[in-house]
Amino acid sequence: MSLTSVFFSEVLGTGLLILLGVGVVANVLLTDSKGRGADWLLINFGWGLAVFVGVYGAYRSGAHLNPAVTVGLWSSGADEYAPGVAVTFGSTLVYFAGELVGAILGAVFAWLAYKKHYDLHPDGGEILGTFSTGPAIRALPWNALTEAIGTFVLVYIILQFGNTPSEIGPLAVALLVVGIGASLGGPTGYAINPARDLGPRIAHAVLPIRHKGSSDWGYAWVPIVGPIVGGIAAGLFSQVF
Amino acid sequence: MSLTSVFFSEVLGTGLLILLGVGVVANVLLTDSKGRGADWLLINFGWGLAVFVGVYGAYRSGAHLNPAVTVGLWSSGADEYAPGVAVTFGSTLVYFAGELVGAILGAVFAWLAYKKHYDLHPDGGEILGTFSTGPAIRALPWNALTEAIGTFVLVYIILQFGNTPSEIGPLAVALLVVGIGASLGGPTGYAINPARDLGPRIAHAVLPIRHKGSSDWGYAWVPIVGPIVGGIAAGLFSQVF
Amino acid sequence: MSLTSVFFSEVLGTGLLILLGVGVVANVLLTDSKGRGADWLLINFGWGLAVFVGVYGAYRSGAHLNPAVTVGLWSSGADEYAPGVAVTFGSTLVYFAGELVGAILGAVFAWLAYKKHYDLHPDGGEILGTFSTGPAIRALPWNALTEAIGTFVLVYIILQFGNTPSEIGPLAVALLVVGIGASLGGPTGYAINPARDLGPRIAHAVLPIRHKGSSDWGYAWVPIVGPIVGGIAAGLFSQVF
Amino acid sequence: MSLTSVFFSEVLGTGLLILLGVGVVANVLLTDSKGRGADWLLINFGWGLAVFVGVYGAYRSGAHLNPAVTVGLWSSGADEYAPGVAVTFGSTLVYFAGELVGAILGAVFAWLAYKKHYDLHPDGGEILGTFSTGPAIRALPWNALTEAIGTFVLVYIILQFGNTPSEIGPLAVALLVVGIGASLGGPTGYAINPARDLGPRIAHAVLPIRHKGSSDWGYAWVPIVGPIVGGIAAGLFSQVF
Repeated sequence: MSLTSVFFSEVLGTGLLILLGVGVVANVLLTDSKGRGADWLLINFGWGLAVFVGVYGAYRSGAHLNPAVTVGLWSSGADEYAPGVAVTFGSTLVYFAGELVGAILGAVFAWLAYKKHYDLHPDGGEILGTFSTGPAIRALPWNALTEAIGTFVLVYIILQFGNTPSEIGPLAVALLVVGIGASLGGPTGYAINPARDLGPRIAHAVLPIRHKGSSDWGYAWVPIVGPIVGGIAAGLFSQVF
Repeated sequence: MSLTSVFFSEVLGTGLLILLGVGVVANVLLTDSKGRGADWLLINFGWGLAVFVGVYGAYRSGAHLNPAVTVGLWSSGADEYAPGVAVTFGSTLVYFAGELVGAILGAVFAWLAYKKHYDLHPDGGEILGTFSTGPAIRALPWNALTEAIGTFVLVYIILQFGNTPSEIGPLAVALLVVGIGASLGGPTGYAINPARDLGPRIAHAVLPIRHKGSSDWGYAWVPIVGPIVGGIAAGLFSQVF
Repeated sequence: MSLTSVFFSEVLGTGLLILLGVGVVANVLLTDSKGRGADWLLINFGWGLAVFVGVYGAYRSGAHLNPAVTVGLWSSGADEYAPGVAVTFGSTLVYFAGELVGAILGAVFAWLAYKKHYDLHPDGGEILGTFSTGPAIRALPWNALTEAIGTFVLVYIILQFGNTPSEIGPLAVALLVVGIGASLGGPTGYAINPARDLGPRIAHAVLPIRHKGSSDWGYAWVPIVGPIVGGIAAGLFSQVF
Repeated sequence: MSLTSVFFSEVLGTGLLILLGVGVVANVLLTDSKGRGADWLLINFGWGLAVFVGVYGAYRSGAHLNPAVTVGLWSSGADEYAPGVAVTFGSTLVYFAGELVGAILGAVFAWLAYKKHYDLHPDGGEILGTFSTGPAIRALPWNALTEAIGTFVLVYIILQFGNTPSEIGPLAVALLVVGIGASLGGPTGYAINPARDLGPRIAHAVLPIRHKGSSDWGYAWVPIVGPIVGGIAAGLFSQVF
């Protein structure tokens, strides 16, 4: 499989992931939306099923959808990122690029789907909250630790999926993400994926959104560094254990 | 398989879909109903499992249940709508007819199941809301765009189901619909299916419902045109990608 | 398989079903319970997963757990109720007896699990509501119709399960029950099973529950007749369609 | 498989179980957490998916994760605890030790993930409630009975999983735990696992948590004795039935 195909496959899959993921937060937060004020469980199922959809969208390239998964596979010593795609510096960058571009585009489409609600919404902080993650209590090293722990669980369990017989396919990773969100999402809103946070943050910075405030670039490193550390740790841990 | 069998199969499956789908909204909105005031997630699971049931009901004809799925298969270049059912102008119309008749009948049975609650409910707008979709913010071109985006996700992923191994059967499309509703249902209530909206709207116009108001025919084109555009786009996109 | 084994298998499976089913309503309604005041969706998942558990408990006898399923199989023209269990008048009565005895015992164990909460709860109507179903709006023929419609969906889809490939096992019927409850449970609390209602009602009448009121025997025929009619109709419908 | 491998496998699996399980309660209870105040169903899905994750983590050793499962297998007359691990007094102790150590470590990591929220939270009783279970109405023999009933259902159904065809793998036990929590969790918060309660209670006693109160050792025997009795009863029952 060519790296061009990998790129477009990850763009499509990550785009679908972020379209639905940003969408569910917009549904819960934005003015007049029909899901406004819904329970945290809706957020968890929305993001989990966003992953479900994204995996079907990017099946050709192994559906990483997440740089932390890519680096976790790398640090686990895997030979291939997907059938016929060798682990190299170049292929790693192609995954990163596809994931980031897809995340930006997905956020743009989510904004279009909720355009009239964004136009009406007066709170810039909540508008950013539909795009990117932010901490409940700002304490960046602790926030990064929470992201690292959550991403460790995500990547380590993905690496174990092959060891336990089951025929539920992409539903397994969807439920894994529902669980991580329910349990470890409270402090930081669970990026557990650098592209999931950075892509929509770039879209937020660029799009002509009425009433938008800061894109909070001071926080942007946390959901990059935490997940990368957690993903690498999961890959290494899977080698020694 | 004869087109007569296709017709009755789609009537039955779409009828079950709309019986349960209209039912869950009636449960949440109508006076004295036991689910009154429940969270948006109940609506999402109700509609998702309505699809689950409808697929079992219409397995003989491939369980389209939705004209947007039918046109998506057509634009994807498929040869058959179901095993032994060729894609022709005539068979397309038979699917459309079965889907619409089923949707009307399903809405009638849902009204019967909630008859005493409909009799008591004083708000004509909410009564219509149990039958058909309506926009949270009325802006018809934007509403149509939201419907097109949601339907694109629905039809494109259905077309990909065969590419990723999984043995969960109809649960996959049920979860897909839960996810689309959670994430993209906020602005328009996610028809993502012209029959789902038009059938119950016709039932609403015809049935002798106490306190009923307008059937809002001015909006009726949106959940037809948006999903048809989204479904055709998904079929074409699956050909080029 | 002997009819004695059938009896005990259905006692066990239906007992587990009602233990968890009565339990979830007790959790939501009773004083000081940790789930008190939860959303309708909790009730739906609680009953759905109660069926999930009951099916594993009664796998030997085909896990009817419900006289409406038994009569639906009979009216569908099936030869056997389970592998090696012929459809006869005698075997039908054995299923009925096992289902009813199991339902009574399950309710007793649920009462024991929530004993201190029952002791404290002051509202006799809510206490009965944890055991048996009751109508939101009392209109017995309409209530029976709602029960018949819901049971038709239940039994008809169960009869179709073999026609659509899926490997999710008992989860399919669990999700079916979640869906029926979400969509059609609003008017009557969805007995859709004569044993589910009559067994706990007998337990309620007999147990020494503090603050208990009437067992409302005037309603008791509705969740028997409605489901039996719906189940027979589903079996007949599956023959002609 | 060596007993050392069993030990570390159970440490890892039970650690993941408790990390996510303690996490979901922290998310719902602690000051400023994003899931604060969510519905009981979030707790149920959080714990159910915590089991899902734990099973993948401990697949090598059969993923007991729970001394009540270990003793239930023993009392059921099983020859092996996992492929290649004979049932002996020594191997039983190794499972117990791995489960307890894992539970302590999992609670420590959950505390780290929510560190800033624990620091701010003023209510010692709720802090303990994120770690260990406690009764809604304190009546220790009745609380132990509730725990025994819930654990009986858990262990008995796990022992039956092999008898009913299904390919959903670890999702089955996850859903079983969601169901038990929804239905039988109201009175005691469903430990149904001695390690799940004792491990985090030890962590609570040892960790330097600000505003922490008593670890309530007077209750600690209940979620040990109840589940052990229920687990042994389930194993014996599976032999006679």
